[in-house]
Amino acid sequence: MTITLELAQRIVAQRFEDLPPQAVHWAKSGILDTVGATLAGCHEDTARLAERALGSGSGPSLVFGSNRRISALDAAVVNGAASHALDFDDCNNTIGGHPSAPVLSAIFALADDIGTSGKDFINAYVTGFEAECKIALAVNFHHYTKGWHPTATMGVFGAATACACLLGLNEHQTSTALAIAASFASGIKANFGTMMKPFHVGHAARNGLYAALLARENYTANTANAFEHKQGFFNVFNGEGNYDASKIIPAWASPWDIVDPGIAVKQYPCCGSTHPAIDAMLMLARDHDIKPDQVARIDSWTHSRRLEHTNRPDPKGALDAKFSVQYCLARAVIERKVVIEHFEGDTYKDPKVRAMLPRVHAAAYTTAQFPADNHFGAEIKVTMVDGKVHTQKVDQPFGRTSRNPLPPELLKEKFINCSLRALPQANVDGIYETIQRLDQVASMRELIALTAVEDKGSRRPAVVARA
Amino acid sequence: MTITLELAQRIVAQRFEDLPPQAVHWAKSGILDTVGATLAGCHEDTARLAERALGSGSGPSLVFGSNRRISALDAAVVNGAASHALDFDDCNNTIGGHPSAPVLSAIFALADDIGTSGKDFINAYVTGFEAECKIALAVNFHHYTKGWHPTATMGVFGAATACACLLGLNEHQTSTALAIAASFASGIKANFGTMMKPFHVGHAARNGLYAALLARENYTANTANAFEHKQGFFNVFNGEGNYDASKIIPAWASPWDIVDPGIAVKQYPCCGSTHPAIDAMLMLARDHDIKPDQVARIDSWTHSRRLEHTNRPDPKGALDAKFSVQYCLARAVIERKVVIEHFEGDTYKDPKVRAMLPRVHAAAYTTAQFPADNHFGAEIKVTMVDGKVHTQKVDQPFGRTSRNPLPPELLKEKFINCSLRALPQANVDGIYETIQRLDQVASMRELIALTAVEDKGSRRPAVVARA
Repeated sequence: MTITLELAQRIVAQRFEDLPPQAVHWAKSGILDTVGATLAGCHEDTARLAERALGSGSGPSLVFGSNRRISALDAAVVNGAASHALDFDDCNNTIGGHPSAPVLSAIFALADDIGTSGKDFINAYVTGFEAECKIALAVNFHHYTKGWHPTATMGVFGAATACACLLGLNEHQTSTALAIAASFASGIKANFGTMMKPFHVGHAARNGLYAALLARENYTANTANAFEHKQGFFNVFNGEGNYDASKIIPAWASPWDIVDPGIAVKQYPCCGSTHPAIDAMLMLARDHDIKPDQVARIDSWTHSRRLEHTNRPDPKGALDAKFSVQYCLARAVIERKVVIEHFEGDTYKDPKVRAMLPRVHAAAYTTAQFPADNHFGAEIKVTMVDGKVHTQKVDQPFGRTSRNPLPPELLKEKFINCSLRALPQANVDGIYETIQRLDQVASMRELIALTAVEDKGSRRPAVVARA
Repeated sequence: MTITLELAQRIVAQRFEDLPPQAVHWAKSGILDTVGATLAGCHEDTARLAERALGSGSGPSLVFGSNRRISALDAAVVNGAASHALDFDDCNNTIGGHPSAPVLSAIFALADDIGTSGKDFINAYVTGFEAECKIALAVNFHHYTKGWHPTATMGVFGAATACACLLGLNEHQTSTALAIAASFASGIKANFGTMMKPFHVGHAARNGLYAALLARENYTANTANAFEHKQGFFNVFNGEGNYDASKIIPAWASPWDIVDPGIAVKQYPCCGSTHPAIDAMLMLARDHDIKPDQVARIDSWTHSRRLEHTNRPDPKGALDAKFSVQYCLARAVIERKVVIEHFEGDTYKDPKVRAMLPRVHAAAYTTAQFPADNHFGAEIKVTMVDGKVHTQKVDQPFGRTSRNPLPPELLKEKFINCSLRALPQANVDGIYETIQRLDQVASMRELIALTAVEDKGSRRPAVVARA
C-alpha cells in the first residue's frame, strides 16, 4: 500500500463521531482564529488585488467581509489570501507553517456552495489538518529549509483532503485528489516579504479544492504512486535521502496534530520574539492596574538572539514598530492590548507612546533568569513613580502549543479586534456564538452569512491605476 | 542585473516589426498546428471533465469547438488541456517538451477577452516561446530528468511572458509576472500516462495568465530576485550546481528558438518511433500509386532501440495500435494517411488492416543501411504482386526541426484532419486561410470566432456519474 492509498482509507473512514473531544475543542479555536484573521485581512491589497485580477464573475461563495459572491474556486483564492494577509493566522510546529488558513479557506468556499453541517465541516478540517501535518512529518524540515513554503506545498494536500471529505469522495477518488495535488504543489520562499506569501495560501486552497473537484469527475492521475514514484512528490520536491515516508501512516491521528502539538495562536500582530515580554507586561498592567503616568521605568529581559532584531528603542515606521520590543511594551502598558491598528499608518508616532518609549529599557536575560535552553522566556520589571516594583516572568508566550494554551478570553479578544475591522458588532458576536456551538449547526451557510456586509468601500481603495 | 530584470527589458522592448520573417513564418505554423491539436482534443474527457470541475460560469473567452464562453482564466485551463489531450501538439528540443500549447492557450483566452491584433499576438507568442525555451536552456536537462514536466514548469513562464506582452505591462510589472510565475511553477512526471499530463498544460497556461494579470494590478513579488535567490526558482527546483543561469541572456533571440531548433510538428498521432517508417511508406504509396491489393510484402527497417517498443505485429487495442509499426504501415499503405480515427475505439480491428498486417515485416536496420549514430532513420521495401520492388529511405522524419520542415501541404492536411473532428469544413477552411494572413488580421476575435460551433453533444458524453 502506498501513501495515497493508505491516507485515502483513513480519510474516507473518518467520521465526526470518532473525533476526541479535544480535537473538536481545538477545531473550534482554529476556526475562530482563522475567521478573525481572514476578516482582519480582507481589505488588504493582497486580497483585493487578487480578486480584481480574477476578473468579474459571480457564484455561490461569499468573499468574507463583503457582499460579493463568486465561484468557490475564486473565493478560495481571495479568502485564502485574506486569511494570511497580516500573517496573524495560526501556526503549527509539525508543518513549520500555517496549517488552518489553506484548509479552511478551501472548505469555507466549498461549504458555501454545497452546504454542509458543522459536524462535517469540523471533521473535514481536522482531517485535512492531519493530512498536511503528517505528510510534512515525512519531508520536514529539509523541505522547509530548502526553500519550499510548507503552508502552500503541504497546505494543498490539506485542502484537497478536507474538500474530499466534504464532497464525500470514495477511496479511489480521494487518493486521486492527493495525486492531482502533487502536481499542483508550488510556492517558493524567495517570494517571502511580498504579497505572494499570503497569496500562496489562496493558491493552495484553490488548487486543493480543484484537485478534489477533478477527482469527483473521475479525472485520472497516478492515483497509487504520485508520492513514491521515482519522479514523484518525494523525489522531485525533496530528493532521494531527504525524506522519510515511513513516518506518515503510524503517526496518523496518534495523536491528532490539531491536539498535539496543536495550533499556535498568534496573539499579537507583531514579531513573535516580542510576544513573551508583551504577555508579562499585560499581566502586570492588569494585575496591578498600572496607569501609564505612574510608571517610572520598565525593564525587559528577553533572549539575546531574539533581542537582536527587536531592540528598536525608536521605531521609524509601522513595520519597524512591529519589530520593536520597546514599542510593543509601551503599547501594552498604555492600551492593555496590542492590536493591528497599532502598526498601521502613522500610529507608531502616537505621542502617548513616544512619551513612554524613553522609560522602556530592553536587555538580554542571563542564565540566572532562565535556563540556557529557553529561548522563549521574558521577564518584566516595572518601577513605579512611588518606588514600588512589580515583576513578572513567563517561560514561553501563551498559545505556542496546546499544552500552553491561550486563555479563552484572550482568544476571544483577538477575534473581536480582528473581525471588527470588517464587520459590525452584531455580526462579530453572532460569529463568536455560532462557532461555540458549531457542532450543532445544521448548515455552515448560517455562519458564513454572518461574514457578509454591505460594501461601503474598502479601507484601502480597491481601484488602482492600470499600467 | 538579474534574470527577471534582463528578460523584462527584452520582453518589453520586443515589437512585431523587429521579428525576422522566419520567426513569423514559424509562428503561423505553430499557431495552425496548435489550433488543430486543440480542436482535435476538445471533446476528450481530459478537457471536458476539467471544465465540468470548474463549475458553471460565463465570461468573454470561447471554449474551442463549442459555443460556451467562460472567463479567460478558465478558458486557458480548458483549451490548454484540450491542446495536449492527444499529445499531438508541437515539440521543441530546447524545452524538452511542448512549447506552443501553454503559451497559445493563455493568449488565445486573453486575446478573446481584451482583443488584440494578429501582429501583437504573433509577437507575444514568439516572445513567450523564447522566454520559456531560454529559461529551459539554463535548467535542462537536469530539470527534465529529475521529474519536472518542463512543458508545465517552463510553460508557465512562457505564458506569463506572452500575456505580459499582450497586456502591455511595463518592465517592473513584467519581471514581477515572472517572479509570480516562479511561485506557480508545478507539475511532476509521476502523473504522466494519465489525464494530468495534458492537464498540466492548462494549469500552466492559466497560472501564467494569472501571473500577468496580478502583475498588472501591481501585485508585489520578489521582482528582481525570484530566480537567483538562495530559496529561488533555480535552487529550489534544480538545486545548487544543477543549472547555469548564465546561458539565458546571451542566447536571447540568437537565434529565436522558434526559428532554430524550431518547432517539431508531430505528423501522426502515434508513437514517434514509427514516424520515419510512415514517412517512407507514404512517399512510396503516393509516388508509385500503390494499391493495397497489389502489395505482396512490406519490409520495414527501423533502429533496434525504436523497434523494441514498436514491434507489435498483432495489436490488441487502440493504444497498442499506436505503438505498432506494422499497424501504422498497414494504415499508411491503405489510407495514404495516418490519422486520429485510426486509433480510436475498435478501428484497430478494421478487416482491411487485418488483411494487410500479415504482409508487413519489421526488422532492425544494420549499419550498412544507416550510420550507427542515426537512431531516427527508416527504410521501406514494398514487393508488389507482379514482382516489382519499390524502396525508400528517410534519414529522419519530417518536421523534427525547422531544418527538416514538414512540407506545407502535410501541415495543412494534419490541420484539416484535426479540426474537422470539431468543426464544419467552412470553419476549418476559414481558420486555415485566416492564419496564413494572421499578421494582417485586425482582431484575433475574427480567428477565434471560427472555432465556435453549436454544441451538438460531444463525441464522448460530458456527463459522468457523480460519486
